[in-house]
Amino acid sequence: MTIKGVLFDLYGTLFDVHSVADACERRFPTLGREISAMWRRKQLEYTWLRSLVDQFADFEAVTEDALIYTCEHFRLSLSGTARSSLCDEYLRLKAFPEVADALEALSEQRLPLAILSNGSRRSIDAVVGNAGLRMRFSQLISVDEVRTFKPDSRVYALAERRLELRRSDILFVSSNAWDAAAASHYGYRVCWVNRGDGTLDRFGYRPHHTVSGIDGVSELISSLAGDPGR
Amino acid sequence: MTIKGVLFDLYGTLFDVHSVADACERRFPTLGREISAMWRRKQLEYTWLRSLVDQFADFEAVTEDALIYTCEHFRLSLSGTARSSLCDEYLRLKAFPEVADALEALSEQRLPLAILSNGSRRSIDAVVGNAGLRMRFSQLISVDEVRTFKPDSRVYALAERRLELRRSDILFVSSNAWDAAAASHYGYRVCWVNRGDGTLDRFGYRPHHTVSGIDGVSELISSLAGDPGR
Repeated sequence: MTIKGVLFDLYGTLFDVHSVADACERRFPTLGREISAMWRRKQLEYTWLRSLVDQFADFEAVTEDALIYTCEHFRLSLSGTARSSLCDEYLRLKAFPEVADALEALSEQRLPLAILSNGSRRSIDAVVGNAGLRMRFSQLISVDEVRTFKPDSRVYALAERRLELRRSDILFVSSNAWDAAAASHYGYRVCWVNRGDGTLDRFGYRPHHTVSGIDGVSELISSLAGDPGR
Repeated sequence: MTIKGVLFDLYGTLFDVHSVADACERRFPTLGREISAMWRRKQLEYTWLRSLVDQFADFEAVTEDALIYTCEHFRLSLSGTARSSLCDEYLRLKAFPEVADALEALSEQRLPLAILSNGSRRSIDAVVGNAGLRMRFSQLISVDEVRTFKPDSRVYALAERRLELRRSDILFVSSNAWDAAAASHYGYRVCWVNRGDGTLDRFGYRPHHTVSGIDGVSELISSLAGDPGR
């Protein structure tokens, strides 16, 4: 089979959400990693819950709510300045180490590369721009337009329309196991990025492929092209 | 205002989901509490994700998937027998200590008491029956009928229809902060049961009242009846 376009998730896939842990640690010594982990978990929960009750709010607002919850949970006082400053860290996430080179290699395959993210348009622009990776992508696609979050099928459908490709011709790349599972259910060709020794979520769907970093995606596409039976 | 019926959440509200921790501990020494916590967290996540991708499965299947994930995460081998035996613990959850007396006191107020739960009809029957509390409830309402999970509004609407009361006349009682918030958004009168020193979830809605146990519900209803301005 021939992949005709590649669609990347952003948070956790190209960019390390836990790069905020250092800033959390500076502000709340010894708790940086725990805060970062709960902050991310609540951020995801709130996107799911808001989608379910049809009360969309942009990703910055959700991120701030999740941080406030986390600090309340740990009984930490959080000034307005500290809150803004920590939330801004989400606009300066670090790309994973292999990402820049891997995207350069992929760009030689002359496929459209795009991002589909829960982030607001402003957040995606900032994160990708701050990392100097804007030129690698033909499109940055935000959920803003459909006012709901992954894994609502309206999000996956938005990217399919924007890329003007059939879903089965799109390789969707995500390290979020639940996102990979849901995108597979939607009908994309799905590659799960399992950097650590992660566990697949179980709700009835599985990704088609697994790689250990974005640097595995280029080879995967070549191998798929050389194997008409797949 | 006069409350005309009381609707209880089951898991975590009337019954302690972490009463499975003892069985987890016996099977996996030192990890009982951690397993129980992740098992519950993934169980909830899968209900949300399945609702979002419209792939309902009954609560027993979701519970089993969440347990398998948890054991894979902790690199624990789980035989088929162990899996069934641990999942069966979810049918024998313990009621919180104050529940039986509190329901007896409430029944003297002659309001219909019902349960609205993510559990399958079979699970709810088993849990409530094993605790000897069946006679306290006029109705046990399962999401089975609408084939989606909380906080999908179709679930809250189901109970409203079944109770034949207006949503604002129903007191909805849950210790799950996200459930309390979503039920408040739906339009129930909501009482959050905060047994420990829990943190409210933040996605735009708040419960109207907070109590520290089910024994606070009866007094709350009396105080509301005596205060026409509320």
